Amino acid sequence: MKQNGRLMKAQPITSAAFAPYGQVIEPGKVAPTLINAGLCQRFTDLATFEVIDGTIGLSLFRSQVRSLPHQLDLLERHPLGSQCFIPMGGSAYLVIVALDEAGRPGAIEAFVASPEQPVNIARNTWHGVLTPISGSGEFVVLDRIGLGGNLEEFRLDDPISIEISDFAEQVV
Amino acid sequence: MKQNGRLMKAQPITSAAFAPYGQVIEPGKVAPTLINAGLCQRFTDLATFEVIDGTIGLSLFRSQVRSLPHQLDLLERHPLGSQCFIPMGGSAYLVIVALDEAGRPGAIEAFVASPEQPVNIARNTWHGVLTPISGSGEFVVLDRIGLGGNLEEFRLDDPISIEISDFAEQVV
Repeated sequence: MKQNGRLMKAQPITSAAFAPYGQVIEPGKVAPTLINAGLCQRFTDLATFEVIDGTIGLSLFRSQVRSLPHQLDLLERHPLGSQCFIPMGGSAYLVIVALDEAGRPGAIEAFVASPEQPVNIARNTWHGVLTPISGSGEFVVLDRIGLGGNLEEFRLDDPISIEISDFAEQVV
Repeated sequence: MKQNGRLMKAQPITSAAFAPYGQVIEPGKVAPTLINAGLCQRFTDLATFEVIDGTIGLSLFRSQVRSLPHQLDLLERHPLGSQCFIPMGGSAYLVIVALDEAGRPGAIEAFVASPEQPVNIARNTWHGVLTPISGSGEFVVLDRIGLGGNLEEFRLDDPISIEISDFAEQVV
């Protein structure tokens, strides 16, 4: 939901709501191809990887699982590439994003992604750091491998306290 | 383990044993970087993506979960790129591979990967189709997106019956 004073309730993420910021990786977006003698559905090419002056690489993130409410005091963005998070240990996670407005974050939105919802954050989208709220906190991450600075940070003067909505609790 | 008549017992996969065929994606291979104010370990660039005449893309596979023993009657390979499987729904899975010997599979080896062990199969490595044996059967797959034929199949005259070793049962 939109920022509201210093308190926000994160809502379940959907492809439509997240479209300005990147992609939610889920089967609904394309029709499947049947492979492996019909025993497997393949949903092809669901993420828009962006890389400037580097390559897409695969890394593992092992994050501490955070408790709620989450105190958001920092947003970051990557000017040289997108960043995709794939939960591997049953972790639901907060996805906190904002479009850029003249070099600083605009209105902040907070979502909850389920352990079956990878998210690809577009290049230059402001976002909170990886914030698992259940599971093991282990993720596969696909982002730019390359030299040069690819991190900008924006510290919030007043931290925002982020809870999850009753509805979002169903996906955790 | 190596092929032994028409019966094989798959063993837990390890980076060392799998090295001829690709990579097991696991933290042990590189030292972590601490990010996010020390709350997250990042293990960077763990997979060797290979693509000829195309790009790496992200797809979802939803496979039926298979019962054991698994009847292996087909191997395939992709001459134009590697293929990486990331379990997302708690699925352990068989990883059945063989090096190429003059256009056909050499000795077959069968492994079991746990739900926390993504595997990247190198270009041109012969392998069985995705074979989850627990969990939901949902995987993120990273492989070549591009035109042109990228699939060769080899049908075994005598199917091999694949069980898992007692030791491997611990990772399922």
